[in-house]
Amino acid sequence: MKAVIVVCDGMGDRPSRILKGLTPLQAAEAEVFNEIARLGECGIIDVISPGQPPGSDTAHLALFGYDPHIYYSGRGAYEALGAGVDLKNGDVAFRCNFATVNQEGVVVDRRAGRISTEEARILAEALKDIKLEDAETIFLSTVEHRGVLVLRGEKLSRMVSDVDTHELGVKIPEPRPLEDSEEARRTARILKEFIEKARKILEEHPLNIERASRGLKPANIILPRGAGTLPNIKPIGEMWNIKAAAIAGGALYKGVAKALGFDIINVPGATGTVNTNLKGKVEYTINALKNYDLVFLHIKATDTVSHDKDPLKKKEVIEWISRELHPLLEIVREKEYYLVLTADHTTPSEIGDHRGDPVPLAIMGPAVRRDWVERYDELACARGGLGRIRGIDLMRILMNYMDKVPLFGE
Amino acid sequence: MKAVIVVCDGMGDRPSRILKGLTPLQAAEAEVFNEIARLGECGIIDVISPGQPPGSDTAHLALFGYDPHIYYSGRGAYEALGAGVDLKNGDVAFRCNFATVNQEGVVVDRRAGRISTEEARILAEALKDIKLEDAETIFLSTVEHRGVLVLRGEKLSRMVSDVDTHELGVKIPEPRPLEDSEEARRTARILKEFIEKARKILEEHPLNIERASRGLKPANIILPRGAGTLPNIKPIGEMWNIKAAAIAGGALYKGVAKALGFDIINVPGATGTVNTNLKGKVEYTINALKNYDLVFLHIKATDTVSHDKDPLKKKEVIEWISRELHPLLEIVREKEYYLVLTADHTTPSEIGDHRGDPVPLAIMGPAVRRDWVERYDELACARGGLGRIRGIDLMRILMNYMDKVPLFGE
Repeated sequence: MKAVIVVCDGMGDRPSRILKGLTPLQAAEAEVFNEIARLGECGIIDVISPGQPPGSDTAHLALFGYDPHIYYSGRGAYEALGAGVDLKNGDVAFRCNFATVNQEGVVVDRRAGRISTEEARILAEALKDIKLEDAETIFLSTVEHRGVLVLRGEKLSRMVSDVDTHELGVKIPEPRPLEDSEEARRTARILKEFIEKARKILEEHPLNIERASRGLKPANIILPRGAGTLPNIKPIGEMWNIKAAAIAGGALYKGVAKALGFDIINVPGATGTVNTNLKGKVEYTINALKNYDLVFLHIKATDTVSHDKDPLKKKEVIEWISRELHPLLEIVREKEYYLVLTADHTTPSEIGDHRGDPVPLAIMGPAVRRDWVERYDELACARGGLGRIRGIDLMRILMNYMDKVPLFGE
Repeated sequence: MKAVIVVCDGMGDRPSRILKGLTPLQAAEAEVFNEIARLGECGIIDVISPGQPPGSDTAHLALFGYDPHIYYSGRGAYEALGAGVDLKNGDVAFRCNFATVNQEGVVVDRRAGRISTEEARILAEALKDIKLEDAETIFLSTVEHRGVLVLRGEKLSRMVSDVDTHELGVKIPEPRPLEDSEEARRTARILKEFIEKARKILEEHPLNIERASRGLKPANIILPRGAGTLPNIKPIGEMWNIKAAAIAGGALYKGVAKALGFDIINVPGATGTVNTNLKGKVEYTINALKNYDLVFLHIKATDTVSHDKDPLKKKEVIEWISRELHPLLEIVREKEYYLVLTADHTTPSEIGDHRGDPVPLAIMGPAVRRDWVERYDELACARGGLGRIRGIDLMRILMNYMDKVPLFGE
């Protein structure tokens, strides 16, 4: 018995004016999605708890059965893992932006004029030489202005404040300890030292001088946020005695999957954007099912267009994803595998931000109690045989179908 | 974004013989209720947990998001607050009845012949002079035979037994400490002293002598019960960064709302009975929405007729409430506010007491996923898009719609 979990990021939505009071899922003609609902049992999921807006990180912890109230230890670790850092216990990792500050240290642009991935890589290279007294540093640029910083050494803590406050026109704050501990104070001090040394290197870097001469904003500072450490968990494979693999474009999702013990399968052209190689991701998913019991396929595009506040585009993206999943549906049907189709949170496309409304769920597979739901959307699924469940319960429900859950009692 | 929560007390019910197997809500022609269901999303609520009959106090704690298993600290405090006592931390408050005992101290009437509010007030006045060695006392009569007693002083505890055992024909018990602590023993002793001193004053009071001469039962004893202290909570306004007001007739509901940090808006003629000025309460609710983000409107009549075991009357009361809510519905629609319609517990009108069956719920407002439910009743709502939720989850669901719930994670 094998299973695929397809998570379309931020796919849950609310009635949209542009779509005449329908949600993008309701408005979409998503035949494969609907077929999954028809062949399966449906429900809705409170990914964290009713009304609670999940972050992308906590949402995935919950969907894979790890209570984020217990196991969440900051986002930075997932970003770093997703960027390919071989993170170790004790490391503290940060998400970072290349940004632009003026001479007074006031943030002028949080994305350094949306600096290109290539240019950011050159700047990141220059930061490799930074030596600190009390910790090693690893800095990697990822996509465009984004990057990750890892502090490695003795006595570090993730309890340090964000330097990136998401605000413009304010002087960047110094990192502060968030608890009264030597470790937190020490980490804040080390982080401050890194930022200062990085700023000096970046200000003087030929690439930034050249950017300035072209009238572009220099990427003259690193703004870290979201300090995180590896979660202290039992890997998903051990948890259920399965082999699990993950396919995702976005670094965060790869990072979460890696932290939870999934093998990461990289797909050429899988970018975590609307231009991703979805066909390739689906092919690789089908292929991975030969060697793995559980394959997690993450699709980011639904969230991206939600953050862009484009309900119409979201409907189209849903229709595209539905079409591209066709070969997977065929295989799952033929082989009598299980297929879970859901979302990690609701991102209303008129708001452009996460909300705590439940997300739709369909599970197809040989043993499910196939219900009467004919469409895959937020409301149709709410009428399904699964009712309203919590994110934390999904894995056990699936593993139960796969005969992986031991009896409790005798 | 603003919201109203309308709680019709004890409105949930069971199939009734008199109503040919329908519940009062099912039998009612309650057009405004049905319209709220049609425009909204529906579900059912286990106010505490499935099958657990809630008290009115614990029910409201839960509906406002405070887990009563953690925050419930006895009913007396709410009664005292509702009666207008400026309760302080450390005070222990009791609900009290004026009752009639014979010379042996055996309870003859728990309500002293349903003594009138006016007469009770005169008697209460006479109890003001009671001086105890170890605590101050505040005694206030409220409606008819009801009143509240507050003990104020050092080292008091709410862990003392009820003196009112709800039984007739038994000798009133002495208050006992309910735990092995100095505070509990001390409080039981102080309470005993108050009851004895009050009994002496009441026995000799001219009003009671005059009542006896008319063949009426004298109100010659105070029976305290439900010792309570202020709950240790974060006020609702701080919890969600909102301004919240409450409109209720019954003292208990005002008291709970006050304890939770609501501003109390008093409406002339709002009595907490079937003869209440409901039109006025609805007008004041609409008016309060100008200055408050959240308005709680409590309507007691549905519970009163349930306790009177009158399903037919309950159906009529429901129809009356539905009609009176019409102006509120219009405003909510026009202004795109949120409106929650629910009950705090089920009071089957053939039993006349609280039961643990779930209660119906409808939430209307701009962002809700409007479902297919066409009627507001226990069964129709159970098919709704919200499914089955817990009381404790309602506030977060509503605050999520009002953009008041911060992300968990990133």
